[in-house]
Amino acid sequence: MKLLQTTPRADGFRMPGEFEPHRGTYMIWPQRPDNWRLGGKPAQRVFAKVATAIAEFEPITVCVNADQYANARAMLPEKVRVVEMSNNDAWVRDCGPTFVKNGDTVRGVDWDFNAWGGLVDGLYFPWDKDDAMAEKICELENADRYRTEGFVLEGGSIHTDGEGTVVVTEECLLSDGRNPDLKRSEIEAHLRDYLGVEKIIWLKRGIYLDETNGHVDNIFSFSAPGECLLAWCEDKSDPQYEISAENLAILENTTDAKGRKLKVRKLRLPSPITITKEESEGVDAIAGTLPRKEGDRLAASYVNFYVVNGGVIFPTFCDPADEEARKTLEEAFPGRRVVGIYAREILLGGGNIHCITQQVPKGGA
Amino acid sequence: MKLLQTTPRADGFRMPGEFEPHRGTYMIWPQRPDNWRLGGKPAQRVFAKVATAIAEFEPITVCVNADQYANARAMLPEKVRVVEMSNNDAWVRDCGPTFVKNGDTVRGVDWDFNAWGGLVDGLYFPWDKDDAMAEKICELENADRYRTEGFVLEGGSIHTDGEGTVVVTEECLLSDGRNPDLKRSEIEAHLRDYLGVEKIIWLKRGIYLDETNGHVDNIFSFSAPGECLLAWCEDKSDPQYEISAENLAILENTTDAKGRKLKVRKLRLPSPITITKEESEGVDAIAGTLPRKEGDRLAASYVNFYVVNGGVIFPTFCDPADEEARKTLEEAFPGRRVVGIYAREILLGGGNIHCITQQVPKGGA
Repeated sequence: MKLLQTTPRADGFRMPGEFEPHRGTYMIWPQRPDNWRLGGKPAQRVFAKVATAIAEFEPITVCVNADQYANARAMLPEKVRVVEMSNNDAWVRDCGPTFVKNGDTVRGVDWDFNAWGGLVDGLYFPWDKDDAMAEKICELENADRYRTEGFVLEGGSIHTDGEGTVVVTEECLLSDGRNPDLKRSEIEAHLRDYLGVEKIIWLKRGIYLDETNGHVDNIFSFSAPGECLLAWCEDKSDPQYEISAENLAILENTTDAKGRKLKVRKLRLPSPITITKEESEGVDAIAGTLPRKEGDRLAASYVNFYVVNGGVIFPTFCDPADEEARKTLEEAFPGRRVVGIYAREILLGGGNIHCITQQVPKGGA
Repeated sequence: MKLLQTTPRADGFRMPGEFEPHRGTYMIWPQRPDNWRLGGKPAQRVFAKVATAIAEFEPITVCVNADQYANARAMLPEKVRVVEMSNNDAWVRDCGPTFVKNGDTVRGVDWDFNAWGGLVDGLYFPWDKDDAMAEKICELENADRYRTEGFVLEGGSIHTDGEGTVVVTEECLLSDGRNPDLKRSEIEAHLRDYLGVEKIIWLKRGIYLDETNGHVDNIFSFSAPGECLLAWCEDKSDPQYEISAENLAILENTTDAKGRKLKVRKLRLPSPITITKEESEGVDAIAGTLPRKEGDRLAASYVNFYVVNGGVIFPTFCDPADEEARKTLEEAFPGRRVVGIYAREILLGGGNIHCITQQVPKGGA
């Protein structure tokens, strides 16, 4: 497929909202034992559940390292397509392409990927296989590709309404480990050029202790143009309270690219979740990879859901707030079937359902 | 995709002739330095020429090991799709699936693959990655799959007219390294079941010194139902003379599944070609892999061509017989463009253009 030297904006392309129709979904199979406990086996079972749930709604492809191919094929249902693709870890939202479209044509944006901070505060080393994932997925999809040499971004650090607005966090996009030499205005120019958006809304911080430097996709999501969801905390003694309140104020005092005020739905977070001794001991403790220590608080959030054709797949935590989250999502996504999956094992690896999925939009108006 | 427990015959599937319409073609990128000289670089250039030629006629996907992905992507034109797929060597005709179809549905037959003879007289060890290729290509094609556990076969050892006839050689299918415990009648039953054919025509031997135990696809091919091509030798002092004459007698004294006599066109072989000192010295000499020794005669044959939508790609050898072969092919395939590619570098690895390609038939009647 072609490597393009232009930009999506110049070519009339835009990133659709996740809630627009999909051609299908990509995932990556988890395995690295310094991030996933017990050689990845518990996480693999949950990833398989997520893939199975998605397959009820749309085509899904799971990318897997060669040495786990046979196991992934055996653990996944037949209707899930399994393809070999070398990776460093399982976060296709972040290392995969961001797809943009113009009418019937779908293309990929292949951002520089540096494992959430490179040598400054990245989460593992090396990340070369992850950085090559976007190109390989574009090849599979017969999609031409834009490569943003010198501009680092992950798909989890942006959320768009498909109508000219993108929401990001300062904590992430202005972090020292990504594009330290770019001014805010230069980062905005890249977002406009590569996502085909007009308006950038800057939230301050992401979920408390989120190891991605506060990816927006764990704290905020669009459910439709003009409508969004914000992770919320009622406990004023929790550091999360101030973070969510600050972001709410920003959202209530801005307009989107179309000049609309945003309708904000609050998705109350579960009670704080921490890593157990047993969970910590199941992970290889290796220099160069973020440790998983007993007692560490995890960045659990219902906002880390994934929208599919006719459905929404969201993480549950065995928490009383699970049902409230389901109701809020059903209200936010009328006409879609809302499916909850107990996702503690994904959370233990540092993200959740949105982080491990990547949509390919369907061509068409 | 599904792993089926039935057979193509039971499900109404048949292997189409190669000259029937294709959905596309697969190839594998060559690299192993104990088979391809100079780290595979000269062969890669010729494989790229073959892929480029095919891309003029139909979609083509090249499968490549992870460590050669970037190089293959750089050496191949943009319209060739490049996907990661672990392999032991580059012979997709033999390790890839044999596709069968029934109306709009295309499925793969995943034969046991043991590197042309396993521990008896196989050409390298191990062959586990090659044996997994058929499954992986079926996944990419969204094709359900028949696996022939316990039955060893390569795609290069069969040629079908798509109308119920398959042609094979005794030298290959009755070899000690493949299915030594099966009687000829049991092998025939497998061919009927997995190719959906009625009539098996047994030639005796393949091209002189062909390291595949005489694959049929180097000595014989169908150009249409009822019409075929046979590698031919005029020199009675050459061991090839008797081999070709013996096969001609068989073809002239048989009928196909429809009861037709076969029209046989002769494709005169080039003069004997041997490995040079320089070529031999470019190959890693490693225990367990067939050596490439100076002076060894190569199994050069024009019959090792590949039929694509609207074209025929055939190997040339810088031999006076090249032009005669072109004329014969143009006569055998009226309406198709015949493209010659100087293919010595493929031949040095042990096969030719048909051996390094695999068609996916187009669904439909």
